[in-house]
Formats: sequence, C-alpha cells, structure tokens
Amino acid sequence: MRVRALWFTDGVLHLVDQRELPGRFIVRPLRQVRQVADAIRTMVVRGAPAIGVAAAYGMVLAHAEGTYSAERAAKLLRETRPTAHDLAVGVEAVRGAWVTGEDPRAAADRYREQIVEECHRIGTVGAPLLAKAHRVLTHCNAGALATVEWGTALAPIRVARDEGADLFVWVDETRPLLQGARLTAWELARERIPHAVIVDNAAGAFMRTGEVDAVIVGADRIARNGDFANKIGTYEKAVVARENRIPFYVAAPWSTFDARRATGRAIPVEERSEEEVLELTGHRIAPRTSRARNPAFDVTPAKYVTAFVTPLGVIPPRELARTLTHRRPTS
Amino acid sequence: MRVRALWFTDGVLHLVDQRELPGRFIVRPLRQVRQVADAIRTMVVRGAPAIGVAAAYGMVLAHAEGTYSAERAAKLLRETRPTAHDLAVGVEAVRGAWVTGEDPRAAADRYREQIVEECHRIGTVGAPLLAKAHRVLTHCNAGALATVEWGTALAPIRVARDEGADLFVWVDETRPLLQGARLTAWELARERIPHAVIVDNAAGAFMRTGEVDAVIVGADRIARNGDFANKIGTYEKAVVARENRIPFYVAAPWSTFDARRATGRAIPVEERSEEEVLELTGHRIAPRTSRARNPAFDVTPAKYVTAFVTPLGVIPPRELARTLTHRRPTS
Repeated sequence: MRVRALWFTDGVLHLVDQRELPGRFIVRPLRQVRQVADAIRTMVVRGAPAIGVAAAYGMVLAHAEGTYSAERAAKLLRETRPTAHDLAVGVEAVRGAWVTGEDPRAAADRYREQIVEECHRIGTVGAPLLAKAHRVLTHCNAGALATVEWGTALAPIRVARDEGADLFVWVDETRPLLQGARLTAWELARERIPHAVIVDNAAGAFMRTGEVDAVIVGADRIARNGDFANKIGTYEKAVVARENRIPFYVAAPWSTFDARRATGRAIPVEERSEEEVLELTGHRIAPRTSRARNPAFDVTPAKYVTAFVTPLGVIPPRELARTLTHRRPTS
Repeated sequence: MRVRALWFTDGVLHLVDQRELPGRFIVRPLRQVRQVADAIRTMVVRGAPAIGVAAAYGMVLAHAEGTYSAERAAKLLRETRPTAHDLAVGVEAVRGAWVTGEDPRAAADRYREQIVEECHRIGTVGAPLLAKAHRVLTHCNAGALATVEWGTALAPIRVARDEGADLFVWVDETRPLLQGARLTAWELARERIPHAVIVDNAAGAFMRTGEVDAVIVGADRIARNGDFANKIGTYEKAVVARENRIPFYVAAPWSTFDARRATGRAIPVEERSEEEVLELTGHRIAPRTSRARNPAFDVTPAKYVTAFVTPLGVIPPRELARTLTHRRPTS
C-alpha cells in the first residue's frame, strides 16, 4: 500500500505529521479549522497540492463547527502560507459549495479525488520522458506526501518504474527543512526505488560529470508565462541543468497554475524564521550573534524549463499561456 | 587579536579544533606526526593552506621523533587527503630542509610566514575589487581558520573593511560540514562584520534578485588552465554568478596552484563518508536503508572565473598559464 498524506473519516481530518518523518510515523487527528490552519503554518502538512486538499477539509470542519462564516474560514486558511496557489484553489472549491448550500464534504472529496486523478495522469504523461533517462534528480519532496497520493515529480518516476524502467533517483537533501532526505528518500525507500541522498551543493557537480540524465521537480505556483515558484534551490538546479543541456521538467496539477499572475514577478515568496537555518535538530550551528535569511521558495524563469508535465500532457513553456486560456484551470 | 588556526611552541603543534566551533574553542596539542595526519584526515584542521602549514609542522615533529625517514613521514602526511595541493607543498618545503641537513623547524616557520604574508598580499590586492561591491557572497570557510591568518577569500573582505568599505557578507552555510555557518560566520561575528547565513540553496536566489554584487571563494587546487577544485557547491555558485553577470573571484596563495595539472580533469576529488550527509549533529536524518554520495569538492571550469586574486595581483584565467611559467609557484 502506497503512502497517503491525509484522509478524512468520521468528521476528522487525519494528517501524517511530516515534521516527524522518517524517524516516527505519527498521525494527527484534527477536528477544528484552526487546527488545520496551524498544521499548514507549522508544516505538519506541506507540498502545494496537499496543502490545498488539507485546506479543503479545513473548510469542511469550519462548516461543521457552525461558528464560522465561509468567508472567515476561507480567510483563516488562505493566510497561513502565501506561495502555494493550490491553497486558494482548495479553499475555493469548498467555499463555492458552502455558500450555494451544497454539501461541503462532498465538494472536498471531489477536490481530493481530482488532485489524485491529476497526479496519476501526470505520472502516465511523464513516464515516457523518464523511461529514456536512467538517472533522475529531484529537489525537495514532490511525492505522495506533497500531493495526497502519487506525487507530481515522483508520479512519473513511480509509473516508469512500474512499467519496468531501470531508474535511479538523486535526492537533493533540500535544506533548510530536509524534505528530500527525510520525505522523498522515505517514499523511495518504502518502494525500494534505488536512490542516493546528496547535499544540495552536490547536484551541480553530478550534472557536470554527466551523472544526471533529467531533472524533475514540483511547483508551488506557476505564472501564465511559465515562470514558477518552488522550494528554495530550484532556480540553481534549473540554471545548472540548462548549462549542461539536461532536460528540466516541472510537474504540477492544474491547481498550481495561476493564470492571473502574468509572470514570476507577481508571485509572493514566503520568508520563514531564521531559526530554520541557524538551528539543526535542536542544536545552534552558527554563532549566537549571527543572523540569517530564509526565503522558503525561489522563482525560476520559464526559459529554464524544458516542459511542464500536466494532466493534459507535456507542455513547453511557450505554449502554456494558450493552454491556460483554452482549458481554464481550477481557480 | 585576530584568530589563528594553529601555532607551534616548545616542540608542540597546537591546532584549534575546527570541528567544535562555534560552540566550543578547544586547542589540540600534538606531539607526533601520526597525530597530525589524523587531525588532517578527521578535519580538526581543514582549508588547503592551513593543511599545508599543519603538514609542514608534522614533518618537524616526525624529524624530532627520530623514527621516521623524511620519505616515510612525507608519505604519511600526503596520503591523508587527496585534493588540497598545499598539502604536498607544505610537506615538500620541510622535506627539502630535512634531507639537506637544514633545520626543519626553521623551514616550517618560513613556510608558515610565507603563507601568512601571501594571504595578507591577497587581501591588499583584492580589497579594491570588493570595495566597489557592497554585498559579497562566499562559500565554505576561506578565512583565517583555513589559512593560519587573514584567509584567502576573507582577506580582501578584512582589508576592505579596515579601509572603511561598507561590506555585507552572504555566508553559504556549506553542507555537509557547515564550514560557512560554523566557521566563516564565527570569524565575521568576532570582527563584527555584518553578515547573514543562508542555506546553500538560497545563494542563487539572492543572485537573481540582485542582492549579490560579487562572489569570492578560496580553492583547494588550481590547474594550469584555471580550472579549480573547491568545496562542493562552488561550481553551482560559479555557474549562477555568470548567468547573472556577477563577478566571481578565486583567492589563493601560490601553494594552491598546481602547474603540473593541465586542466581540472587531472584534479583528484575526495569522496568522504555517507554519514556526513545522512547524519546531522548525531541524528540520522534519512531512512536507514537510504544511501548517500558525498564528494567533498567539485571542479569549476576556468570559464566561470572572472579573476584569480593572488599575491602577485589580480590575474584573469587566460593569463594564468603565462604567470605560472614566469613565476614558478612553490611546488
């Protein structure tokens, strides 16, 4: 049985606490929208598509609590984190049902199913790209934990592997919160997919020495022109991949595409606490008087993207705007 | 008083234990060449020029012990780590004196003085380059701890600052061993030079957003054509700096230049233990069954280097071979 990031049963949202992996597998049962907002803010759940689904169920809980207006619940959830577009999309999917008197739970379930189905499609669409590659590098965690099931960047790896491709995955550890070493490696280890964890600094070196055939990452928000935000460090990997003529793919469901933002300049980038940089497993690593900067994301210009891997197919950046106009994504 | 990485008194080599900083300042007194070899291998002392000086004094200890031939002592020290060229140069400086009957201690002292003087010259030569910059990024530690005094990359920063320049330093934390967050930040904090620690992933993002005016790093070995080895991650920073038209400087004393290696392809790159990646402050961060790769250095092609900052002046890569022919470096 493959891992899931969350599930909703008997009026309770269950989240796998992603801060505790891989050391401990702890499930947090949440009964109030405020708990869901806290869980998103403190990264019990993370990954743009998973945040969107968690927020959708947060709306369901708010509705059941009876003390929130749809607007107030939506605002509470939307303000937890600024970068992931999926957060607003997930909230909106349930708010629409709520205000028109439909069943919020049914709307949230539909939204979750849609994300899972789109991720599976991403896997099917992307697998042929990776089947030709042998050694694939990924950054952060864009797996089941980030998306409920399948993943975005990991979905094509899973499908290609199921179809018999002989794949090896380079896992960037992804400082500061180590989602690569902790979460991506955990997903791959469970499924016995061969992989090696590397420090983020080593990704470029392995690209230069010819040991990386393709790079695939997820995204937190993709602008109409193809500029996209993703975990800090993605920009460096994209630049070095292009320098070494290595294909660079961005995999995402429609909830990550933000047709209202013309370019990356309009994407808000969250800056998180200095302590995430200055402390490691509870230990201070830098001098007491040293400060830090900690942008959680960076924006990669579209020119570094070989193609977007979407539920509708593989789309080069120059065709993205047209696709977004014809097939209006969820937003 | 500025920090020193090591000193030799009363027949004892004293090394600041760089694994313990910034939490604890511990000095290790060494009386045998074998202890010096272990200290280099386990990175009590690190940084190519400092390794060279430590090895020079290791030869002095071996001579005093009376049970080593010069050849055997030299071999023991040279085999500790493969990448830093300075190691062989420091050993050779004392072996020459030893086999011709000169005083090894005097030869080691001269070698140390030469390195300190060259680093000071690097500071004087490089300061004007940085005085025009405001925000300088550096990777790993190329400070006093890496070179006995002054540093290589940090020497121009110190001199520019002493001359009144308003400098701010971006400090890459430099995984896996965090020499940036632990050592460079410690040196800068002691001298109240404004700085911020960032995860290695964030360097490119700050370059792209126009918040880095220059990059300066040290080196472990520089080939005749200007390709050079330095701490893993240097290559990524160099590629992204060029992509953003940010000057990229490499500061080094002559002991780091290896005129016998034509290009970077001939530079040996050390691969260290998986545990340096998979464990942090004693905690396992990845699943038990996950493997890691851990190259300690990468090789950056000369085309990404704006100039080498040397004791003889600022030298663009295309002029390096001629300079090395005319002024034969220590080797």
